[in-house]
Amino acid sequence: MRTIDPLHVQLLRTLRDEGPVSRAELGDRLQMPRPRLLAELERLVNLGYVAEAGLAASRGGRRSTLVELSPHLRFAAVDLGASSIDVEVVNGRLEPVAAYTEAADIRSGPKVTLQRVNELLHKARVDGAYERLDAIGIGVPGPVSFRDGVPVSPPIMPGWDRFPVRELLTREHGCPAVVDNDVNIMAIGERHGGVAHSVDDFLFIKIGTGIGCGIYLNGEVYRGTDGCAGDIGHIQVEPNGPMCSCGNLGCLEAVFSGAALARAATAAARAEVSPALVERLAEKGAVTALDVAQGAVEGDVTCIQLIRDGGRRVGSVLAGLVSFTNPSMIVIGGGLAQLGHILLAEIRSVVYRRSLPLATGNLPVVLSELGPRAGVAGAAVLASDLAFGEAA
Amino acid sequence: MRTIDPLHVQLLRTLRDEGPVSRAELGDRLQMPRPRLLAELERLVNLGYVAEAGLAASRGGRRSTLVELSPHLRFAAVDLGASSIDVEVVNGRLEPVAAYTEAADIRSGPKVTLQRVNELLHKARVDGAYERLDAIGIGVPGPVSFRDGVPVSPPIMPGWDRFPVRELLTREHGCPAVVDNDVNIMAIGERHGGVAHSVDDFLFIKIGTGIGCGIYLNGEVYRGTDGCAGDIGHIQVEPNGPMCSCGNLGCLEAVFSGAALARAATAAARAEVSPALVERLAEKGAVTALDVAQGAVEGDVTCIQLIRDGGRRVGSVLAGLVSFTNPSMIVIGGGLAQLGHILLAEIRSVVYRRSLPLATGNLPVVLSELGPRAGVAGAAVLASDLAFGEAA
Repeated sequence: MRTIDPLHVQLLRTLRDEGPVSRAELGDRLQMPRPRLLAELERLVNLGYVAEAGLAASRGGRRSTLVELSPHLRFAAVDLGASSIDVEVVNGRLEPVAAYTEAADIRSGPKVTLQRVNELLHKARVDGAYERLDAIGIGVPGPVSFRDGVPVSPPIMPGWDRFPVRELLTREHGCPAVVDNDVNIMAIGERHGGVAHSVDDFLFIKIGTGIGCGIYLNGEVYRGTDGCAGDIGHIQVEPNGPMCSCGNLGCLEAVFSGAALARAATAAARAEVSPALVERLAEKGAVTALDVAQGAVEGDVTCIQLIRDGGRRVGSVLAGLVSFTNPSMIVIGGGLAQLGHILLAEIRSVVYRRSLPLATGNLPVVLSELGPRAGVAGAAVLASDLAFGEAA
Repeated sequence: MRTIDPLHVQLLRTLRDEGPVSRAELGDRLQMPRPRLLAELERLVNLGYVAEAGLAASRGGRRSTLVELSPHLRFAAVDLGASSIDVEVVNGRLEPVAAYTEAADIRSGPKVTLQRVNELLHKARVDGAYERLDAIGIGVPGPVSFRDGVPVSPPIMPGWDRFPVRELLTREHGCPAVVDNDVNIMAIGERHGGVAHSVDDFLFIKIGTGIGCGIYLNGEVYRGTDGCAGDIGHIQVEPNGPMCSCGNLGCLEAVFSGAALARAATAAARAEVSPALVERLAEKGAVTALDVAQGAVEGDVTCIQLIRDGGRRVGSVLAGLVSFTNPSMIVIGGGLAQLGHILLAEIRSVVYRRSLPLATGNLPVVLSELGPRAGVAGAAVLASDLAFGEAA
């Protein structure tokens, strides 16, 4: 096994996250002796990872040369959702140079889905976004063996079990690839460039079609023995609640998720207890979770109550997880994060009431900052880390 | 800050865990070049950590010299429970050379309790167990700031909040000390010399006077932001359940713990639904959790049902934690582990039914192997790790 030099990775990450830096400053920052730093930089220039970037502002003596990541570096970031594909090509500083979003059904299977991903990436090349990719990061909506680069028994992804996602992408694009769970990449995105910036212990709760949790402990994503840590959607919240797709009763996901909320909203519209939802149903023939959000903004009491009920359920699960992990922050993301303040207020109220006071003394519960971009942002971070490890 | 050389600590740990080893084998094992190994060993001999231990069996050529931890090394291990003090003095291989157990009330405060600990340790010295201690490890029944060596807002330890436990022990015995939560030291004990030997991701559930969880992730104890990770006793299991000491309703601890079980058993005895418990109540004027265990062994239906009910509650909390952390093993310890197979069977049944199949595909749920010694065993491991880090 090749050993990865952590200082080396650190150097490339510094250039990624802070842009052009003078050699002198880089040496200070990494506490690296100058000869070693210069040798490393020369090697990275030869490998095409680092480039000169002009002279730094004077610090009194001789002006130091700036270095930066090569402007030719390109990473691909892919976020596969239950019903969407998001693809971005980013430069070394993880700024998007091309982005595509489209509807897609994950149930159409790995071949169809990944072929579409490949088409979008080839289109980006033709459009001039890159000449060659240095690494690809991809998130999928199910458990993943991070080591093997394959989905493992993913409940909502028929045909994907142990499909060689990493291998296929590597072969097609001639660069290394990394596969992770969709919630993990969202958490990675928020930690790198969002609300959880540099927070070492936090939970990222995705509430969308399903419900999942990304877990950051000691500054690292925790993935569990089989890669399925964070699967909180099937924690029971109502012993006699509705049947879940997993076959158990009263799972969190069966009680509050995009699908569950749409069902409850439709029932409320049919029962004519909510003027806002009755109107939406008449207009469109169906109501969704977003109609509930809209109704709540307009002050519809039933819509507000539906969101509060959901927040209470999520809060009761989170209260237990807070007692269990004692995190520094909770971030709420995913489609239903659009339910906004009402949802957040209810979650906070339950968590603060039900968890150990010591654990909630200083525990912000906040909305995702990157919103729908969190996933691709995290996939880009993973891709660059992979490339930097490979370069080292 | 001093840097600790991980190879160095590894060397001392190898001698601790495997006993006398030849220099040649040690070099192979640690993949350390011979000159460096010899220099390190010489330094450790001079520091009094390592000693020669005669010649190894021949491997053909010149016979290699064995080295071992100095026979003079001594660590103190202390496990403070809600109502007990356990103290051991162990040698470098963590074998007990003196052990004391006695009843004590943690609510008598830090001065009284730690004075008793000091008396027991001084008695051990007078009895010839040691001349000087190399390090002390101590566990307390409440949240701890591991970094600061103090309890933090411990609910059942009045007077202990931020009391300088580490400082007091260090001053009294002239050696470094380390303070941790009682459940964490039990988990450390089971991982070092018990059923979880070398398992990297597992949960240790202590069910005793209270209920808590020690969390091993990636081979390290996870303590959380404020040192109170694993506080699962106050996860709600019955929204309309009995009032807990924490002020909330239906916490796991309020529904199933030593105290809760004794209450339920007393009620069953008074209602005369359990012949076994009626008899115990008449004999002793009170019934305890252990009477329930005894009654279950004798086949008393009510006792069996009380244990099953408790197992179901613990199982429902664990099912959520299994989905959340995807561990490789669950270990059940603490006083109520004596409820044995019936408890275990019920916990297993709920966990396997309620957690994600991927997470339970290969998930042993087992009883603690070290039983009441788990705590001191773990405290001794912590003490030796501390000393080895200091020596390095």
